[in-house]
Amino acid sequence: MSQTQDSSAETSTTKRRTFMAGLGALAGSGALGQTTSARESGSNGTTGRRRNVILTIPDGGSRTHDTAARYLRAYENDASAFPANIEDVELGIDRAEYVGSMSTYPDDPEQLITDSGAAATAMATGQKSYTGAISVDHDGRPIETILERASDAGYATGLVTTTQMTHATPAAFAAHVEDRGQQADIACQYVRQSDVDVFMGGDRSHFRAEERDDGADLIGEARDRGYQYLETASDLESVDDGKVLGLFSETGHFEYAVDRQADDENTQPGLPTMTEAAIDVLEARSEQGFFLLVEGGRIDHAGHANDPAMLPEQLEHDEAVEVAMDYAGDGSGQGNGRGPTDTLVVNVADHETGGLVLGRDSYDMNWEYIAEQSLTQERLASELEDASSQSALASTLEDHTGIDDLSEDDLAELEADPSAIEGRDSVVNRRAGLAWGSDAHTATDVPIYAKGDNAAYFGGHHENDDLFAGLEAALGLR
Amino acid sequence: MSQTQDSSAETSTTKRRTFMAGLGALAGSGALGQTTSARESGSNGTTGRRRNVILTIPDGGSRTHDTAARYLRAYENDASAFPANIEDVELGIDRAEYVGSMSTYPDDPEQLITDSGAAATAMATGQKSYTGAISVDHDGRPIETILERASDAGYATGLVTTTQMTHATPAAFAAHVEDRGQQADIACQYVRQSDVDVFMGGDRSHFRAEERDDGADLIGEARDRGYQYLETASDLESVDDGKVLGLFSETGHFEYAVDRQADDENTQPGLPTMTEAAIDVLEARSEQGFFLLVEGGRIDHAGHANDPAMLPEQLEHDEAVEVAMDYAGDGSGQGNGRGPTDTLVVNVADHETGGLVLGRDSYDMNWEYIAEQSLTQERLASELEDASSQSALASTLEDHTGIDDLSEDDLAELEADPSAIEGRDSVVNRRAGLAWGSDAHTATDVPIYAKGDNAAYFGGHHENDDLFAGLEAALGLR
Repeated sequence: MSQTQDSSAETSTTKRRTFMAGLGALAGSGALGQTTSARESGSNGTTGRRRNVILTIPDGGSRTHDTAARYLRAYENDASAFPANIEDVELGIDRAEYVGSMSTYPDDPEQLITDSGAAATAMATGQKSYTGAISVDHDGRPIETILERASDAGYATGLVTTTQMTHATPAAFAAHVEDRGQQADIACQYVRQSDVDVFMGGDRSHFRAEERDDGADLIGEARDRGYQYLETASDLESVDDGKVLGLFSETGHFEYAVDRQADDENTQPGLPTMTEAAIDVLEARSEQGFFLLVEGGRIDHAGHANDPAMLPEQLEHDEAVEVAMDYAGDGSGQGNGRGPTDTLVVNVADHETGGLVLGRDSYDMNWEYIAEQSLTQERLASELEDASSQSALASTLEDHTGIDDLSEDDLAELEADPSAIEGRDSVVNRRAGLAWGSDAHTATDVPIYAKGDNAAYFGGHHENDDLFAGLEAALGLR
Repeated sequence: MSQTQDSSAETSTTKRRTFMAGLGALAGSGALGQTTSARESGSNGTTGRRRNVILTIPDGGSRTHDTAARYLRAYENDASAFPANIEDVELGIDRAEYVGSMSTYPDDPEQLITDSGAAATAMATGQKSYTGAISVDHDGRPIETILERASDAGYATGLVTTTQMTHATPAAFAAHVEDRGQQADIACQYVRQSDVDVFMGGDRSHFRAEERDDGADLIGEARDRGYQYLETASDLESVDDGKVLGLFSETGHFEYAVDRQADDENTQPGLPTMTEAAIDVLEARSEQGFFLLVEGGRIDHAGHANDPAMLPEQLEHDEAVEVAMDYAGDGSGQGNGRGPTDTLVVNVADHETGGLVLGRDSYDMNWEYIAEQSLTQERLASELEDASSQSALASTLEDHTGIDDLSEDDLAELEADPSAIEGRDSVVNRRAGLAWGSDAHTATDVPIYAKGDNAAYFGGHHENDDLFAGLEAALGLR
């Protein structure tokens, strides 16, 4: 068994033994590992018709997030026609043919509300597990994922996210570890064991020899295995139809959408751009079709921070959904010269984050404050911290929130404690009329939006571990 | 123009003139008033096939409320199997064939978030109006409602609610006033102008000569017009197929579901019982079919109070939805000996109330506290107020919340201020892990659930004023 993940200090020896035995069993069954032969032979049960599945996950989204995206889009389109122009907005999600709903709770006696690991595990494998799990069961045994099923059957596969590449949601589709914190292991499994054709996400550190405890140069190994390695948005332009490993930040996640837009030197691609690029590569990688996961991963982080910057993040995710919906077209084929194709697009959050509420003890909201916030509150706090005087602080505040009428006292308070610009009771949240009920995830059912082949499956109410079977069917694997 | 509403101190003379002119125009067009001839002739464009529409409105509900109902039902079914048994729950809403979503904002420059008047006006008439409006436009002109359209075309019609009969939501289907506060006018229009076959709701005061400024005995008038008058749940048992005016409280709304269950002397019927009774009468009232509105009206009130007693209220509403879904059956007819019937059931909230969040800065929730709260917090506060000693207070608290471990200090605080048991930060909310973002309505899009004839119309995203056309089509009126 040469293809194995690296060792990890986070896993106890006993647990590890169980896990490895499980992994061995699965590898023995042919569920893991290279599948070039399957890909060449074409085993999806179709006769020449390509099948694609694009699963888009707004991490931490909800029905209320979708509403917020709709309102913000309308406000940005034409503030003077707001709110009457809300009805003119067509979001990516509005292109769905079927809408359903989904329960998100994990199989975890310790907590009712899921984390992204347990949620992605349930969706990717068809089996609920404990929080923190990355596609392993309660005994630490790996559970085959929809991406691995697809890859084994000859489909091209891709993982695209704005978080760290090794973060819980993408990881649960192509790696198996007992604890989501084992990011070094996840990187190792990606490069050495998975057959994923396209990786695009953040954080090179877990792939670099200098920063890994085991000194493995996973970027070099990936190159040896035929991956084109990318670091910037402009690198995307020279990609051919070979495999892709795109790691667009040195460490950590992508910058938030608002901060990226505010920073001329930021070289990270947006989620819609990555989605388009991934589709292009995947189309060329298999005659059968592809499975692609796209995650708007920082909606969740802005939700934890109770930051209105969550909304532009949600809108960016919706633009990626639009790319996928456009691609799925009318179901008659994409006109890309590759022949008839069935594409299923499913958009579903893994859980809600932040307990977002549109309204705050009032019957009005002021969307201009949301539209004018041009930095995350975290970064704004840091800019306010750097202000050299109270008038410089007032000017920075106005530049990034449009707020120019704080009293002397309020400005003095903010100067004394710039972090007051952050969090649930920030001036923007209060003025906009946005409330947040939690700094954690919440249990509300999330909507499912589906379009294309087998979309009807996703109507009605589902458990998160029901998703797998619908995706499998769309790929002709059930 | 003899059929007119009574005068109201709340409406200015000028406004009133405009309004009356509008009402006159509509009455002249035949849109208002008696329609017995139409009913006899049968004008729904069908040949012998009955058509019914049951519109159920959980006032103040949302996707999160639906989730909460699902979790509470599972917990009540078997606390020891919770949460794994959530997947076994089949709510009334789960019987829907199509799920959509709906924007709820009014056409009101003064505020973005709707009240129940503007929301019900939009749904009932197909036209958005200002907050507080009851099926009138910005000039105070009445707008024909779906119920009036149905009645004119020969359908039987009914209004069932747990609020005051003259409250905004039911009123907007069968009355036209400039301000929802004109409840005396609404009662008058119900009895003198509408052709509604079944009224079931709360608050007799607006119908009683002793309590009306104009001294009109509307209950007597209703009897003269052929209505059977009911005051208690047991009165429902003797109802024949004549018209019904059921007013089940002296003043105000029904008691909340939890308080009703705790009170042996309460004689108010539950919403599912009223729904069944109304269907029975309406079936007999027209060969064409019927239009029935059912409102779980106090979900909204508990939401304003940020009281977990909202959840049993939501569950009771869902049981009424189940009655409607059962009745709609499989679409092949109800087997009631009345011949083939198409029934459309649509369940949709008018707006969300309270900014309900399932989770409170934590990844866990404790549903036992929600399940064990057996009185509204308002009523519990009053019982605590009446407690004769701190130990009596502790015992009352335990009886109605299951909480038996408050410290001496906490008990002393509660004794000093029993109202601390109420509201957003009450001990039950905190312990359960329920958060609330607002004491008002919020702007989140609400889900639409539809089953039966023309249900497909309600998939996808809609404005609230789009509902009307779908209901009209289901009745063969479009």
